[in-house]
Amino acid sequence: MSDTKIPYKIYLSEDEIPKQWYNLRADMKNKPAPLLNPGTRQPLKAEELAPIFCEELIKQELDDTTAYFDIPEEVQYYYRTYRPSPTIRAYNLEKALGTPAKIYYKFEGNNTSGSHKLNSALAQAYYAKKQGLKGVTTETGAGQWGTALSMACAFFGLDCKVYMVKVSYEQKPFRREVMRTYGASVTPSPSTETEIGRKILEKHPGTTGSLGCAISEAVEVATTHEGYRYVLGSVLNQVLLHQSVIGIEAKAALDKYGVKPDIIIGCAGGGSNLGGLIAPFMGEKLRGEQDYRFIAVEPASCPSFTRGTFAYDFCDTGMICPLAKMYTLGSDFIPSPNHAGGLRFHGMSTILSQLYHDGYMEAVAVEQTSVFEAAEMFARTEGILPAPESSHAIRGAIDEALKCKETGEEKTILFGLTGTGYFDMVAYEHYHDGTMTDSIPTDEDLAPSIDAVKALNQ
Amino acid sequence: MSDTKIPYKIYLSEDEIPKQWYNLRADMKNKPAPLLNPGTRQPLKAEELAPIFCEELIKQELDDTTAYFDIPEEVQYYYRTYRPSPTIRAYNLEKALGTPAKIYYKFEGNNTSGSHKLNSALAQAYYAKKQGLKGVTTETGAGQWGTALSMACAFFGLDCKVYMVKVSYEQKPFRREVMRTYGASVTPSPSTETEIGRKILEKHPGTTGSLGCAISEAVEVATTHEGYRYVLGSVLNQVLLHQSVIGIEAKAALDKYGVKPDIIIGCAGGGSNLGGLIAPFMGEKLRGEQDYRFIAVEPASCPSFTRGTFAYDFCDTGMICPLAKMYTLGSDFIPSPNHAGGLRFHGMSTILSQLYHDGYMEAVAVEQTSVFEAAEMFARTEGILPAPESSHAIRGAIDEALKCKETGEEKTILFGLTGTGYFDMVAYEHYHDGTMTDSIPTDEDLAPSIDAVKALNQ
Repeated sequence: MSDTKIPYKIYLSEDEIPKQWYNLRADMKNKPAPLLNPGTRQPLKAEELAPIFCEELIKQELDDTTAYFDIPEEVQYYYRTYRPSPTIRAYNLEKALGTPAKIYYKFEGNNTSGSHKLNSALAQAYYAKKQGLKGVTTETGAGQWGTALSMACAFFGLDCKVYMVKVSYEQKPFRREVMRTYGASVTPSPSTETEIGRKILEKHPGTTGSLGCAISEAVEVATTHEGYRYVLGSVLNQVLLHQSVIGIEAKAALDKYGVKPDIIIGCAGGGSNLGGLIAPFMGEKLRGEQDYRFIAVEPASCPSFTRGTFAYDFCDTGMICPLAKMYTLGSDFIPSPNHAGGLRFHGMSTILSQLYHDGYMEAVAVEQTSVFEAAEMFARTEGILPAPESSHAIRGAIDEALKCKETGEEKTILFGLTGTGYFDMVAYEHYHDGTMTDSIPTDEDLAPSIDAVKALNQ
Repeated sequence: MSDTKIPYKIYLSEDEIPKQWYNLRADMKNKPAPLLNPGTRQPLKAEELAPIFCEELIKQELDDTTAYFDIPEEVQYYYRTYRPSPTIRAYNLEKALGTPAKIYYKFEGNNTSGSHKLNSALAQAYYAKKQGLKGVTTETGAGQWGTALSMACAFFGLDCKVYMVKVSYEQKPFRREVMRTYGASVTPSPSTETEIGRKILEKHPGTTGSLGCAISEAVEVATTHEGYRYVLGSVLNQVLLHQSVIGIEAKAALDKYGVKPDIIIGCAGGGSNLGGLIAPFMGEKLRGEQDYRFIAVEPASCPSFTRGTFAYDFCDTGMICPLAKMYTLGSDFIPSPNHAGGLRFHGMSTILSQLYHDGYMEAVAVEQTSVFEAAEMFARTEGILPAPESSHAIRGAIDEALKCKETGEEKTILFGLTGTGYFDMVAYEHYHDGTMTDSIPTDEDLAPSIDAVKALNQ
């Protein structure tokens, strides 16, 4: 039933878990634009970031020349509890599609956090502990990052305060309960605990929250509580650095069997998975050693790459965070509540934004009903119940595989399966019941927040 | 931080996935008592079982002399989608307990069904398909078996009708939705679709159902619909046979590193995981080659081993299933609705019952608050969020490790971690909120159903 030359799953041995993270920026000719101080609009210095971020993480954030960073022993130890993650040949999906394409996926969902987010959570919690901090604050939307950070904080003995977007807090009580199991405190955002939260509630009394609001609250708490710092699960350079373990392992596994992907596909919200998955492959492309097609798949309801503008913008709604140059829909943009799952951030990693701007990557936006169609097909053939976020990449991979079916090309496709959908069954229920709809913003919907970005950049 | 000689996880290669199941009965001097026809009270013949079960599965059910059965190619193929499962050294748990004991666990939760149940579901669906059937029927309580069977039926292209205990159907809508994602139909039991269901509803109008009721309904549907058979996820000899892959892999992994467990611990409901985990070790003990202690850990609220009677009893409430000689609380016994998770069956595998009766195994009953205390400690140290069922084994392992701490003995403990608790967060919530209580039946509670068993055996 299967190709006997290549195992169904390509597992590396524990010795093959990466010992260094790869910093893609070192190989970029056009470096990502620096973060700016929101007050002075001047590039941020390390000392200005010190009240917000951990020291070692600031170094990683600002360093665009060092190609490799050693992964600390303690982080490697915890990586060994769930890594290496498998690289899997999707024989059953290929068969169901009747495509000559060869489809591989790197599966990051086999840990309790249920996603790749743990790769960076462990690193960030470790550096916080090493600095002697009491705890960390963060925001979470769909809940994957909050869960990952709660686990990491339990391992390293840190207090963990999570601000969870209110609509998720109410719709996903089980995610909240998982975080509590790992000892984290979880507060619905916006809350009355912070000045920013109170301001937002005053201005928008009935708001169900947004990632941008929750970020503002978490940053405020970190900067006003002794011994706390703020940590973030996506967008930042440091996060993409940590997530490079995904791509390094995937490349090592494929190299072992002499497989070269033609197309590499990832879902894109803030860019943590996509940036990590493509890192070593993109490095080869930037150095002129090998060519690959890279495709970012984003939701049509939050299309920062395909319909955003490339400019400096705030990372949060409260406008207390640094300005980043990125593809953005504007920090005021809030995607339709109809949109299930994550990938709701208004902006995009500065690294990926620069690469996209320079023509190294492509991007497509897909509608959520077609995403769930792909998710269900994948579940029934490959067995894994995918997260809605990950299913964007599945949709992208299926679409490319169907093109191969038309042309007869035997392309090799690699995509990132970031996590599992166990906490997203309400969305699946809506899909089964036929009550799920698409929610594509019109140009008029997008105009106000994008115009605000343009004004900010004049 | 860790013992460098033994990796944190012991992964076998794909070549080391078992190619044969081991039939423990072949090495038992006192064979498990035969199933009896509920009408004639005579040992059941294959032809009498044929309207209920698939042909190949009947052969496996009745064969107590063949030691090894080849695993069909197609089943091996699907085993490769999630096996071999890891055998893990619980360094962090050991450290937190301060015990000299060495604790290993065999983790069966890394597949979408979230438990070991898929090992038998794939085998049973395969044989049903091979026989040319249209579909299968089954019951599910906590939902793990129903999920596993839905997946297996999706792979093999079979219709799957699941009767889900009503209280679970209502309390666990997400489990139901997972099954629907894999294409199964899910009906709350008792239902008005079957004669038995209507009878039970007439007698007990407000009933929230039980496994015994759901079994009766599933069997009725299988025997009255052309091209359908009934399949079961635990208790049966065939299920323990399929689940032997757990023990064979665990033993191979430990052998590879020269590790001999002193104590082997598993949770016990119907016996599917416990029987599979201990199989090859128990084989050595039965053949006089090696001694081990085996401990079954059952819930104090459904204590068939420790407080049941060893006698012939019905496997279902409707009394249409064969009689099995087993430790039983009586087919009328329904555990307190306060008891979270699975392990709610009134009886026990005939194989394990005979072994326990003959003194080859021990059994303990534990209370659910202490089980969740163990579960949370495990989650925070080892990372994996365990299912309530699996956490009974964790409790047992922790208790043995704490005894080692007192005596200073460096015993090696192996336990079975059957699955993950993602769909059990309501129970965790009750534990966190302090609203979870224990529910131990009094002797008076147990007397009526046990007396009925005694009367049946006179």
